[in-house]
Amino acid sequence: MARRGKPVIAILTDFGYRDHYAGAMKGVIASIAPSAQVIDITHGVPPQSIVAGALALRESWRHFPRDTIFLAVVDPGVGTARKPIAIETRAGARFVGPDNGVLALAADEARIARVVSLQSARYRAARVSSTFHGRDIFAPAAAWLARGVGLGSFGPGLARIHQLRLPCPEVSQARIRGEVIYVDGFGNLVTNISRTSIELLQTSFPSDGLLVRLKNGAAMRIVGTYADADGPLATFGSFELVEIAVRNGDASRYFDAAAGASVTVTPGTARRAKRS
Amino acid sequence: MARRGKPVIAILTDFGYRDHYAGAMKGVIASIAPSAQVIDITHGVPPQSIVAGALALRESWRHFPRDTIFLAVVDPGVGTARKPIAIETRAGARFVGPDNGVLALAADEARIARVVSLQSARYRAARVSSTFHGRDIFAPAAAWLARGVGLGSFGPGLARIHQLRLPCPEVSQARIRGEVIYVDGFGNLVTNISRTSIELLQTSFPSDGLLVRLKNGAAMRIVGTYADADGPLATFGSFELVEIAVRNGDASRYFDAAAGASVTVTPGTARRAKRS
Amino acid sequence: MARRGKPVIAILTDFGYRDHYAGAMKGVIASIAPSAQVIDITHGVPPQSIVAGALALRESWRHFPRDTIFLAVVDPGVGTARKPIAIETRAGARFVGPDNGVLALAADEARIARVVSLQSARYRAARVSSTFHGRDIFAPAAAWLARGVGLGSFGPGLARIHQLRLPCPEVSQARIRGEVIYVDGFGNLVTNISRTSIELLQTSFPSDGLLVRLKNGAAMRIVGTYADADGPLATFGSFELVEIAVRNGDASRYFDAAAGASVTVTPGTARRAKRS
Repeated sequence: MARRGKPVIAILTDFGYRDHYAGAMKGVIASIAPSAQVIDITHGVPPQSIVAGALALRESWRHFPRDTIFLAVVDPGVGTARKPIAIETRAGARFVGPDNGVLALAADEARIARVVSLQSARYRAARVSSTFHGRDIFAPAAAWLARGVGLGSFGPGLARIHQLRLPCPEVSQARIRGEVIYVDGFGNLVTNISRTSIELLQTSFPSDGLLVRLKNGAAMRIVGTYADADGPLATFGSFELVEIAVRNGDASRYFDAAAGASVTVTPGTARRAKRS
Repeated sequence: MARRGKPVIAILTDFGYRDHYAGAMKGVIASIAPSAQVIDITHGVPPQSIVAGALALRESWRHFPRDTIFLAVVDPGVGTARKPIAIETRAGARFVGPDNGVLALAADEARIARVVSLQSARYRAARVSSTFHGRDIFAPAAAWLARGVGLGSFGPGLARIHQLRLPCPEVSQARIRGEVIYVDGFGNLVTNISRTSIELLQTSFPSDGLLVRLKNGAAMRIVGTYADADGPLATFGSFELVEIAVRNGDASRYFDAAAGASVTVTPGTARRAKRS
Repeated sequence: MARRGKPVIAILTDFGYRDHYAGAMKGVIASIAPSAQVIDITHGVPPQSIVAGALALRESWRHFPRDTIFLAVVDPGVGTARKPIAIETRAGARFVGPDNGVLALAADEARIARVVSLQSARYRAARVSSTFHGRDIFAPAAAWLARGVGLGSFGPGLARIHQLRLPCPEVSQARIRGEVIYVDGFGNLVTNISRTSIELLQTSFPSDGLLVRLKNGAAMRIVGTYADADGPLATFGSFELVEIAVRNGDASRYFDAAAGASVTVTPGTARRAKRS
């Protein structure tokens, strides 16, 4: 990776694309830290979905330059007691956002080194609204971090952050039972079943293939990529998790399935022949 | 505010996110003014909604660096007699766009110093289409402003700009009657009733609370933030206007209400207890 | 056009705005080529629509700085035999993406000088997923190009690229029969009928006007711009193609028409009077 002069601030919110909310945050950053490079990860996290935001951040952070400041605002409790925080990690990435779990999955992967509560009035807007902390607290904090202000200047340290528990799959010797945890914009159904757990199951049943079933529907083999089947299929998507897709289609609509839908993996042979 | 070297161009349009239209504008800017920093405020203004664009610009401009050039294109009359204009203001901000009201609210707040009509062929595309002045007139003007071309070089001065009249609330001693003027992407209903008018009414009825009613529906108290109620609520949103929201929900769908819906504020005590 | 120091990478995808996919690509680019300026053309190409992506790219490229690197990822065949490629053109523009036609219309206009297959492991992610080549192959290639790596370093040359055939209109002496090839976000219906073919027809029938009919519906005159009629109209849009629109409305909904809908142009006089 090339070393860089300019600090990078990467933003992820559920503010959507209709309003000026993300724009106002970027204006605040440009005012405080004109030399920062701002990159939008997405502002299309489903409204108030902390889990979706946390997953998108976990899947993004490691692709950014080492010292990137991640500004993640999915904040249904804005204005309440949940703390605004900033995190330093051993991997170098820093995270700014509400302490409601949206930062938890990414920050854990990056190994948390230090956490503070964003209390200092000096690094907030002069007047803090009760409904838009993205603009008044979080964007200023990210921008001042980019300017080189030390983490300790923002407020008192915290011993831990709010964790986010993703549902764990049940793994037995002959079956994995998991669920859909994320539906992406193509309608692909991302499950909580990892490549590792699949490989373990395969080791136990070396002579059989594995079949994936969604809500006890038709069985699908695990194929290499989206184009390796004609209709519905299971594959390892970019999350490195079992993902159910429909070739040139939308699996969420095809199966009428959303987050929470049950998914099982068992040894066996699909009745539908694999295509290639 | 830090002083900056690079000029900032902040863009707001109703071009949406499906097509290349906003991208083509950014290409034009990068060609003319490669050192400008371009920030998207939003391209998701509801199609051809001048009022929504004007409000979003009014709520954004003051968060940007002082010398920012705002490029706002919501232009249902593209190709007709409405003038393309550029505005200098006492606050430092400059505005470029069609003279149809979309610039009016923000430019008024920033105090208009000088207005010109964008007539000079030198600072337009070599060939101006009749349907895409964003690309052929407005983006080049913003980029040349960023390059340092003086306002007077773009065309003749204008004495005034097209105003935009927002509906005024009716304020009497015992009641304010206003309306919804903006629905944001979360479904929050932003009204034209200001914090000041609410505080005045409260002064007249110090012993009572105030109740907000939408289209004569259930009465809501004014709470501090979105999380201070269980269901529907009224609060002062980031616009500093009375805003009707539903906790973890969408008020626009909940009340089946859109811009223009009637809202009244009266002294009284809500039957539904306040939550905290 | 001003000469620029910083290389520009312009991105067009069908990844949408809900997920982190486009953000992850931008993180990869910032990691490899921190000084590149990244511009989003759009990430809203209709999912897996190669034709829509190719048209949007064709309509964008010439508005960008001469040496821009265009990164276009609409890739329904990700993970299959279709090749990842990079193209140099005589016009200066470079194109990176899958060899499935999405680059073809723009690259042809820019006059292809050299094509390579992106094979070198050195300029890919250390681990290439089977479902996200935008992040693992295409974004790295664009970033390394921006860093100055020569085209020949990426892999072996290719003699030709996959072409994209747009449907051709049938032109006879007294009629043009074409079709809708693109529906934009405003609902405007862009056809495959060029200004040149219209001008030829007009030369043959100088005393008559020309009438445009969509699916044998009501006849429309060709007007100068969107505001030159009260309801449905035909005009030359920014594509320089006949475009059917509805003033202050959505032609796609008005006519219930999509890509593929038949459009005819004949000499004649519209029953409905022209407005101005």
